[in-house]
Amino acid sequence: MSGIATRARVPATAALRDIQGPVAARLEDVGSEIERLVTDDLPLIQSVSSHLLLMRGKMFRPTLALLASAVLDRPEARSIRLGAVVELMHLATLVHDDSVDHSVLRRGLPTVNSLFSHQISVIMGDFLYSRALIGLVDMGDLAIMKIITDVANELTIGEMRQLAAVDALRFGEDEYYQLIRNKTASLMAAACESGALCGAAEYRDAMARYGDRLGMAFQIADDILDYTENEAVTGKPGGLDLKEHKVTLPLIGALPNVSKGSRERIEQLFADEAPADELIADVISIVADAGGIEYARRRGEQFAHDAEQALSVLPESPVRSALTDSIAYVMDRRS
Amino acid sequence: MSGIATRARVPATAALRDIQGPVAARLEDVGSEIERLVTDDLPLIQSVSSHLLLMRGKMFRPTLALLASAVLDRPEARSIRLGAVVELMHLATLVHDDSVDHSVLRRGLPTVNSLFSHQISVIMGDFLYSRALIGLVDMGDLAIMKIITDVANELTIGEMRQLAAVDALRFGEDEYYQLIRNKTASLMAAACESGALCGAAEYRDAMARYGDRLGMAFQIADDILDYTENEAVTGKPGGLDLKEHKVTLPLIGALPNVSKGSRERIEQLFADEAPADELIADVISIVADAGGIEYARRRGEQFAHDAEQALSVLPESPVRSALTDSIAYVMDRRS
Repeated sequence: MSGIATRARVPATAALRDIQGPVAARLEDVGSEIERLVTDDLPLIQSVSSHLLLMRGKMFRPTLALLASAVLDRPEARSIRLGAVVELMHLATLVHDDSVDHSVLRRGLPTVNSLFSHQISVIMGDFLYSRALIGLVDMGDLAIMKIITDVANELTIGEMRQLAAVDALRFGEDEYYQLIRNKTASLMAAACESGALCGAAEYRDAMARYGDRLGMAFQIADDILDYTENEAVTGKPGGLDLKEHKVTLPLIGALPNVSKGSRERIEQLFADEAPADELIADVISIVADAGGIEYARRRGEQFAHDAEQALSVLPESPVRSALTDSIAYVMDRRS
Repeated sequence: MSGIATRARVPATAALRDIQGPVAARLEDVGSEIERLVTDDLPLIQSVSSHLLLMRGKMFRPTLALLASAVLDRPEARSIRLGAVVELMHLATLVHDDSVDHSVLRRGLPTVNSLFSHQISVIMGDFLYSRALIGLVDMGDLAIMKIITDVANELTIGEMRQLAAVDALRFGEDEYYQLIRNKTASLMAAACESGALCGAAEYRDAMARYGDRLGMAFQIADDILDYTENEAVTGKPGGLDLKEHKVTLPLIGALPNVSKGSRERIEQLFADEAPADELIADVISIVADAGGIEYARRRGEQFAHDAEQALSVLPESPVRSALTDSIAYVMDRRS
């Protein structure tokens, strides 16, 4: 998960700004609300919080929540708080992810575990999570609380699935979808569904479905990037997922079509604790040649199509257009 | 925090059984409810959960919640769920504590981080916490939700304070009380207060005060044990807090009375990354000779007295007696 933000940010900035257009002012308020929720008078907490606010990301999930609340052009004021809660939950997950993965950088800045310590990142993740919950309980809406606490649990299950998803020959396509649904699509679906409850409750189910399919397409696009990045002119080794033995859709899609020799090469990578760049580059080529990237792309397009379908019941409006554009944004990131 | 359970368990078993008498049947139900809440069909989660259920502790916090709910002899059925939520929150904290402290054993069994991995313990703590919250939200009581989510935040702040409490000459008595209130007393106060809301709401404030003072006495007794354990016949080096540079009340109480030479010896320990057993034993003697242990004992007795005072408004009953006995139980643990 660690790479999502870094990879996606730069090229799509303009498109993201367009998507955020209809909710730009309220998105600023979400930023202030996040700051308010994480403020504390303990110097150590304040210093970690300030660092985290510096590395604030694209605010894609709050954007989805705000757009969903505005589908009928009458978003409730509490959607601001909801956006802050959703982003804080996301941030808490990232802090624990970085700690678990021993990541050093995120969004071009040092991670909490690298700048402070591993201890502080575990505790700080818990802190952010608990502050998000305080903000959530203060909203006083049981339906929204249920959505958000359910998704908090799904995110942890997604992380657990991730730890088990390291066996190239046993991890299948259905398990992959379960994994990315838990770790990525669930929070986007929750943002959309709970957002709808703040001003467009009749579209709750449609928005939940849209968020789920969008999130699936988002993660598949991200997993494809880990393979295609390698072809770029950057010269970076790429293939981080393979390096960490993470089985993703391009590999799953390629496996049935690879020769016995190629299959052995893949097994070799997954048996190697620290596979060399050459071996990684080899497997990337094997996957590409066997049509794995194409396969993943088609699956992603199917989810994107389903997301668009889910929007068909919504009235035409700039908000609906922004939701449609979000699909293209998710698909086009640096590919 | 890691040592609380291990140290306290053996000698006070009988007394604890007496305290739990009035709620014994319901405490069994809390156990089943915990099991129900943490069950999952992902094999990895199930295997960690089973291990955690094996190392189940004294259930002191659910006992407090159940007793508080029964002060008027008409406890509500939902107090079972509450007890499970409180214990799961406690368990989540312990799992993250062990991970942060790299502890190897708890309650005589390997910790999650040592038996599985550091990664799994971070994620599993999040999992337990999120399941506790699902159980909490399902209760549908906003007042209880506010108490529990507030305390979740306090616990993280207590952990952060702990990380900053490593400078013997700057960490004062007031800061110490803030720290132990956050990390220990807050959850006992929350268990008592939310317990009261499940059958004896008119005693909510009294029970919150009782739980707070009890928790303060509990942690002070625990911190004293870290000094007195050393005098026991076990021959263990003891002084784990000093080894980890944790400043607790005996040291704070001793400091004003120590000679210049002794003060330098203390500074030497806190400047030493891995202080030798001899140095630790020296500082323990210095603290004892300067009356630090006596000082902490008197402060603990004051909190115990305040806890008893808080109970004075309650009607006489076996439950009130059990709450009174809980104070003695907390004070007498292996001392």
